[in-house]
Amino acid sequence: MKKKRGLLAIGHTALDYIIKVKEFPVANASASIETMKNLYGGAAANVAMVGATIGLKTSLVSAVGKNFIDSEYHKQMQKLNIDTESLIISKNKDTPTAFVLTDENQDQISYFYLGAGKEFKKSAIPLKAIKKVEVVHLATGDPDFNCRSGIASKKEGKIVSFDPGQDLHLYDNKKLKEVIKNCNILFGNHFEIERILDSLSVDIEGLKELGPSIIIKTCGKDGSVIYNNHEKIRVDSVYRPATDPTGAGDSYRASFIHSYLNGDSLKDCAKFASSVSSFIVEKKGCQTNIPNFKEAKSRMRDFYNLDD
Amino acid sequence: MKKKRGLLAIGHTALDYIIKVKEFPVANASASIETMKNLYGGAAANVAMVGATIGLKTSLVSAVGKNFIDSEYHKQMQKLNIDTESLIISKNKDTPTAFVLTDENQDQISYFYLGAGKEFKKSAIPLKAIKKVEVVHLATGDPDFNCRSGIASKKEGKIVSFDPGQDLHLYDNKKLKEVIKNCNILFGNHFEIERILDSLSVDIEGLKELGPSIIIKTCGKDGSVIYNNHEKIRVDSVYRPATDPTGAGDSYRASFIHSYLNGDSLKDCAKFASSVSSFIVEKKGCQTNIPNFKEAKSRMRDFYNLDD
Repeated sequence: MKKKRGLLAIGHTALDYIIKVKEFPVANASASIETMKNLYGGAAANVAMVGATIGLKTSLVSAVGKNFIDSEYHKQMQKLNIDTESLIISKNKDTPTAFVLTDENQDQISYFYLGAGKEFKKSAIPLKAIKKVEVVHLATGDPDFNCRSGIASKKEGKIVSFDPGQDLHLYDNKKLKEVIKNCNILFGNHFEIERILDSLSVDIEGLKELGPSIIIKTCGKDGSVIYNNHEKIRVDSVYRPATDPTGAGDSYRASFIHSYLNGDSLKDCAKFASSVSSFIVEKKGCQTNIPNFKEAKSRMRDFYNLDD
Repeated sequence: MKKKRGLLAIGHTALDYIIKVKEFPVANASASIETMKNLYGGAAANVAMVGATIGLKTSLVSAVGKNFIDSEYHKQMQKLNIDTESLIISKNKDTPTAFVLTDENQDQISYFYLGAGKEFKKSAIPLKAIKKVEVVHLATGDPDFNCRSGIASKKEGKIVSFDPGQDLHLYDNKKLKEVIKNCNILFGNHFEIERILDSLSVDIEGLKELGPSIIIKTCGKDGSVIYNNHEKIRVDSVYRPATDPTGAGDSYRASFIHSYLNGDSLKDCAKFASSVSSFIVEKKGCQTNIPNFKEAKSRMRDFYNLDD
C-alpha cells in the first residue's frame, strides 16, 4: 500500500483583532480606535497554512462558527487546498477570537473568546481525517480532544507531533503524560520544555523514555535544540529583525515536519524551519509573510552557507 | 413619468460586538470573554433593513470594508433586495465596528472603529442612487457627505429626511443649518431636538422656517410628537418590555417614512412606526426582531384600538 503523505493539524483556528487606542477607557467611558487589523491566527490553522504554502499536503480540524464557512479566511485555506472537510462547526458560537489592544504607552489588554472552541470537548475523534495523513500535529486547542486524538492517531500508526504551547497550563499531569506517551515528536519553547520537565519530574532522557523520540526546543532568536537518541543538536536561528514574533513557532513546526517527511536530517529540518520562521517575524501577523518552498530554501542556503 | 418610489438610506453600516466579561482587565493583563454576540448595526443599514422587511423598496449608501462584500451581513441585505450597488468600498479599512464590553457590575466600556467610514469625506455624491428613489434619509455617517447629499437630493426634487442622532455634536452650526435647510423631515429624540433648537437659537416654529415642514421628536416609551404646519400631534408609544432599546429609533424612522409614502396621516405614520419599534426593543440587536408589515399593522390596530 502506498504510504499516506500529508499533515493533519488539530487545534484552534482563530481571528485576531489587533487594535490601537490612545488610552484605555475607564468604566462607563468610550475610546476611538485609531487602527484595527483583523489577522488570521490560531495555532493549528497557522501550521496548516504555512505547511500548505511551502508545499505540504495539509488538513485541519478546528472548531469554528457557522460564519467561518466561506469567509475570506476559509477561502484562503481552500485556495491552498487545505482539506477542511472535518472542521467542527458550532451552531451557536463564533470562531475563537482574540482582541489585543495596545495604548500609546505600549501597554496591552487582551480579551479571549473561546466560543466554538468549546465544541471540541463533546466532539468525536476525527478518525476519517486521521486515516488520510502521515503526521498528526496536536496544537493549542482542547487538552481532552488532543489526548483522545493522539491515542487514536498512534493506534493508526501515524506520526504524532505535539505542541501544547500556551495551553500547557490547561493539562493536568495525568493528561500531559498521556499525550506525551502517544507522541513521537514534542515541540516546545524554552519555558514550556522546562515546565514539562518540572511538572513530570524528569530530565530530557526521562522525557524521551515516556514517549517522544524527538524533542525540539525552540528558543526564538537563540535558535533551537533537538534531542534525539542520545544526541543533542543545536541549530542557530536565521536572524531577521522581528516586527512581530507571533506565529514564528507555528511556522517552525509546520516547516520542520515538512522537511522531516522529505527525509532530511534533523539538523536540516531545523535549518529549514528557522528559515521559514524568519519570514514570519518580518511582518505583523501569523500568516502574513509565508514564503514559498524555494524562497525558504534559498534563504536557508544563504544563511547557513550550504551548497545547492 | 411614473413617480419613483423607495428610500435611499445614507450613513453607517456597522458591526457591533456585544461582549460580556467578569471584569475589565488592568493594563498588561487579559480577560476571558464569557459571551460574545456579533450583531448587525449602523443607523443607515438599520433603516434600510427595517424598511425592506416591512415592504419598502430600499437602497443603501454606506462606506464599508472589502470584506463586507458577500459577508453574511451583505447577503442578508441582498436577500431583502436592498440595492447596495452604490456602497463605498474602502481598499484598506474595515467596516465600522463597535465593541461594547459589559462586566458583572453592568459597567460598560466601548471602543469605536470608524475605519471605512472615513471614506465618505472624499467620496462623490451618490447621484445615481439618489435619482432612483423618492426619499433620501440622512443618518449618522459623515456630516459633510450628508450635507452634500442633502443639497443634491433637494435639487433633484426628492424628499429629504435627516436624523443626526448621536453624531449631532459633529455638526457645526453652519453645517447643521445647511442640512436642515435642505431637509423636509427632521427626526430627533427629545435631547437632540432640544439641542438643535438651542444651537440654532430658534423655537420649533423657527426651526420649521429654516427648512423642514415636519419635525418628529421621539421620546422612547413616552411616545412621539410631530410638529407640522401649526399642529402638534402627540402619539403614545406601543409599550413592550424593553430588552434592548438600540435600533428602536432607526426602525421608527424607516416605518414612519414607509407609512408616509403610503399616504397615511402623520398620526397613523407615528402609530405604525411605534408598533414596528416595539418589536425591535423586545430582542437584543438593532435588526434582530424586525416584524413584517402584517405583524406590525396587527399590533398597531390592537394597541390603538383601530378598525381594520
